[in-house]
Amino acid sequence: MKQGFSSSFERLLTELEKMPGVGRKTAQRLAFHVLRLPEADVDALATALRDVKSRIRPCSICFSITEEDPCSICADPKRDDKLLCVVEQPSDVLALERTSEFRGRYHVLQGVISPLDNIGPEELRIGELIRRLKDSSVTEVILGTNPDLEGEATALYVSKLIKPLGVKVTRIAQGLPVGGDLEYADQVTLSRALEGRSEI
Amino acid sequence: MKQGFSSSFERLLTELEKMPGVGRKTAQRLAFHVLRLPEADVDALATALRDVKSRIRPCSICFSITEEDPCSICADPKRDDKLLCVVEQPSDVLALERTSEFRGRYHVLQGVISPLDNIGPEELRIGELIRRLKDSSVTEVILGTNPDLEGEATALYVSKLIKPLGVKVTRIAQGLPVGGDLEYADQVTLSRALEGRSEI
Repeated sequence: MKQGFSSSFERLLTELEKMPGVGRKTAQRLAFHVLRLPEADVDALATALRDVKSRIRPCSICFSITEEDPCSICADPKRDDKLLCVVEQPSDVLALERTSEFRGRYHVLQGVISPLDNIGPEELRIGELIRRLKDSSVTEVILGTNPDLEGEATALYVSKLIKPLGVKVTRIAQGLPVGGDLEYADQVTLSRALEGRSEI
Repeated sequence: MKQGFSSSFERLLTELEKMPGVGRKTAQRLAFHVLRLPEADVDALATALRDVKSRIRPCSICFSITEEDPCSICADPKRDDKLLCVVEQPSDVLALERTSEFRGRYHVLQGVISPLDNIGPEELRIGELIRRLKDSSVTEVILGTNPDLEGEATALYVSKLIKPLGVKVTRIAQGLPVGGDLEYADQVTLSRALEGRSEI
């Protein structure tokens, strides 16, 4: 109240500031924007927030997020049953779908192995992945975890469990990003780009 | 639905993207954050959004925003009745209050004169300002509109209306920002800093 504003405004600022990447100034800009919006728009936003929380659940097959179980990708008969891409988060599914490149199915681990955060393999959907592979027609598993320390460790761990099942295991390529610049690439990326070179 | 996600998720993305400075990627980051939040937190945010919209109105004296009319600044008996600061938006009141420097009262114009946006003086709270000054003990009006084209024009317009009332009119100073650098200052700012020089 010290700024002479109302408690409901302060409360909105506090709630907005809890969002990632939203500091005091952004929260204020958003809150003043909300004040200028028609009431119907604010209602729509508030309803959308509550709906997402109450309606969305993990898909029982791939563990991505969905409103109807199984999710539309798992339920799609036109998807390739032989290819399975393993990713960390539902947002990774979204990113891969945007490429329109991948026509197989997904499995979301819901995290990565991270001893520092006390996340072991049993916290992830690895058991479900192995069970899923056992009675399936999957012939290749693409490990699409992030190319960082935890993602690499998780990919290695998962690959060791899958190989005994006689399924081919691949890893997404690492190298220079398209439009990138050799001069500004870090050493590790450059090493990976060299290692992963292909004949043209 | 093409990404295999639910319609309620898509709807939240659409609503979030309407916010200023929120593009597709930020909307997605926020929406995934919402999914991870406890239901109580999402409820709190949705409620705060609706409350702000339904409870906050303009103060009938200064036209800043408030839940109780008059606002806490207008109702505060310890404020200096002789000083009145005229600003464009309620957010400017917030910014000035943060300095803890100004102990007078405010008048919010709710905009600036901007012929390009079809905003003339009659759209602003200028009439209310003049009426307010007529039966008041205000001795100095500080024009705190932004130091840009519209803000300057509005300040000039308002000052011409106030001066006949025999009230002193001042304008907030323009010059180099504290911590700024002469080398990188634009020409207009530098000219204003020279014009506005004071003896030390």
